[in-house]
Amino acid sequence: MTSPQRLSGVLAPVVTPFRRDLSPDPARFARHCKWLLAHGCAGLAVFGTNSEANSLSVDERMALLEALVQEGVPAATLMPGTGCCALTDSVRLTAHAVKLGCAGVLMLPPFYYKGVSDEGLYRNFAEVIERVGDARLQLYLYHIPPVSQVPITLALIERLLKKYPGNVAGAKDSSGDWNNTKAMLDAFAQSGFDVFPGSEVFLLEGMRNGGKGCITATGNVNPAAINGVFENWRVPNADELQRGITATRNLVQKYPMIPALKSIVAHWGRDPEWATVRPPLVELTPEQNKSLVAELEARGFDMPGLAATQSLTA
Amino acid sequence: MTSPQRLSGVLAPVVTPFRRDLSPDPARFARHCKWLLAHGCAGLAVFGTNSEANSLSVDERMALLEALVQEGVPAATLMPGTGCCALTDSVRLTAHAVKLGCAGVLMLPPFYYKGVSDEGLYRNFAEVIERVGDARLQLYLYHIPPVSQVPITLALIERLLKKYPGNVAGAKDSSGDWNNTKAMLDAFAQSGFDVFPGSEVFLLEGMRNGGKGCITATGNVNPAAINGVFENWRVPNADELQRGITATRNLVQKYPMIPALKSIVAHWGRDPEWATVRPPLVELTPEQNKSLVAELEARGFDMPGLAATQSLTA
Repeated sequence: MTSPQRLSGVLAPVVTPFRRDLSPDPARFARHCKWLLAHGCAGLAVFGTNSEANSLSVDERMALLEALVQEGVPAATLMPGTGCCALTDSVRLTAHAVKLGCAGVLMLPPFYYKGVSDEGLYRNFAEVIERVGDARLQLYLYHIPPVSQVPITLALIERLLKKYPGNVAGAKDSSGDWNNTKAMLDAFAQSGFDVFPGSEVFLLEGMRNGGKGCITATGNVNPAAINGVFENWRVPNADELQRGITATRNLVQKYPMIPALKSIVAHWGRDPEWATVRPPLVELTPEQNKSLVAELEARGFDMPGLAATQSLTA
Repeated sequence: MTSPQRLSGVLAPVVTPFRRDLSPDPARFARHCKWLLAHGCAGLAVFGTNSEANSLSVDERMALLEALVQEGVPAATLMPGTGCCALTDSVRLTAHAVKLGCAGVLMLPPFYYKGVSDEGLYRNFAEVIERVGDARLQLYLYHIPPVSQVPITLALIERLLKKYPGNVAGAKDSSGDWNNTKAMLDAFAQSGFDVFPGSEVFLLEGMRNGGKGCITATGNVNPAAINGVFENWRVPNADELQRGITATRNLVQKYPMIPALKSIVAHWGRDPEWATVRPPLVELTPEQNKSLVAELEARGFDMPGLAATQSLTA
């Protein structure tokens, strides 16, 4: 059996739509996924931080993933988040994703206890890999210390990669620290460990150092332009293209990211219900929303075709 | 209908036993709960931080809680932890606990996202209370910023207490900051909001300021002595009693708390399997274990009757 096709390019941690009653909406979710794949995303890191994944139960996540596949989103484009606080939950979600044929899984460390040892984290990931017990499993480690507060160290990666070279496929680095991403690339990129910076701000620098693309929140709204940098990173004006996507990122980032992304999808999709978030998040205020839209319009920002797709009622 | 009997006294966040294969062991769990109730605990804050609750799936927690009640642990002594990252999980666990007749629930805020607003946290707790929709619900807010990184502010308590005076019953303050506990007591104790310091170190000071007892990790191993302070807080030598339990706490606290508690139960219960923890935690090293036991023995520490109870095989 040949090893599965690895993902590369721009991946979006797809925002998860909720109805007014806060229930997840699989139809809106599938439509947004299809729009992303048609507009520059090579893959979909569903159930990431920006997806409010940890605000969903395990059953809700499994039902949404099955709905995507049933709606025709290719499993080969999917890299669902499957790392939970509870080992048993991580195993269940990971085994489910592999069984559905997903290209990979993006795995948070267990994030409730702080100051845990690399030994404890190693046991967590090793136990998941062993219990899933499937050669098809492509596991990407999710390093996002500003949120999880539990880092994935280089020493941990080294140990896991040595023991499970066929399963440990790479990492998303959302540290926001280029030096860390560079160290990860320098240490492991040549061993077939695929590093994705967690923001398009580091896309070009990442590509120049052996990266495989990026997995980025704003991939939800600006995928074509971000993919433009991925596709053209060797061209002479790549730095100029990079400055363009960085500027858009910086604009969105002035607002609370998840509500802002949902506001943008709601506005350009002409579908106000998209702005709904689950607690503990809160949607943008009307003033924030107005100002965000105005700033994006002033940049000539657009999401072509989104309204036609999103305004379809289920 | 009269309001439910409120818990007061010493509560232990009961450690959760795992078999060698890391599956939860309901029989050992029930035996330890019964030993605790027979040796000074007024209540059992099962599924707390020290219970590795967040290392358990929702289904595992529900099955364990049902097993306790079936084994004869009175539901009126139980205050299970039911606060999860996902609203739907918190609702499910809380409704289940209320239905079983539990005295209360101890609820973490959703703890994945950091820097969330009081408005978002208010919506989370309000949504749980509304969805459970049961006058019997006695909700205790769980403030443990060193671990959750998401605080329960006084302003949040005030708002929840005003809107849901019949359901918002109190708080556990595991900030480790007496000034915060004192502020909570001063602001709300007279409104029928029951404050439990999260460590017996603040038990006496808490009682002198209107507290209701304590919910403490070391309640798992030293409940009689801690209850001695609770029962005798008005006697002349209360400070001396307090110094004794503080000294034992400080001794245990030199070691990683959860593995240390499990090592103590394993040793005094003559049941080595009790030392098992789930990743990302790791058990004590043999050296740590030996030194912990020796230090406790030097203090004359004992867990009378535990071996007879715990060594029963299921």
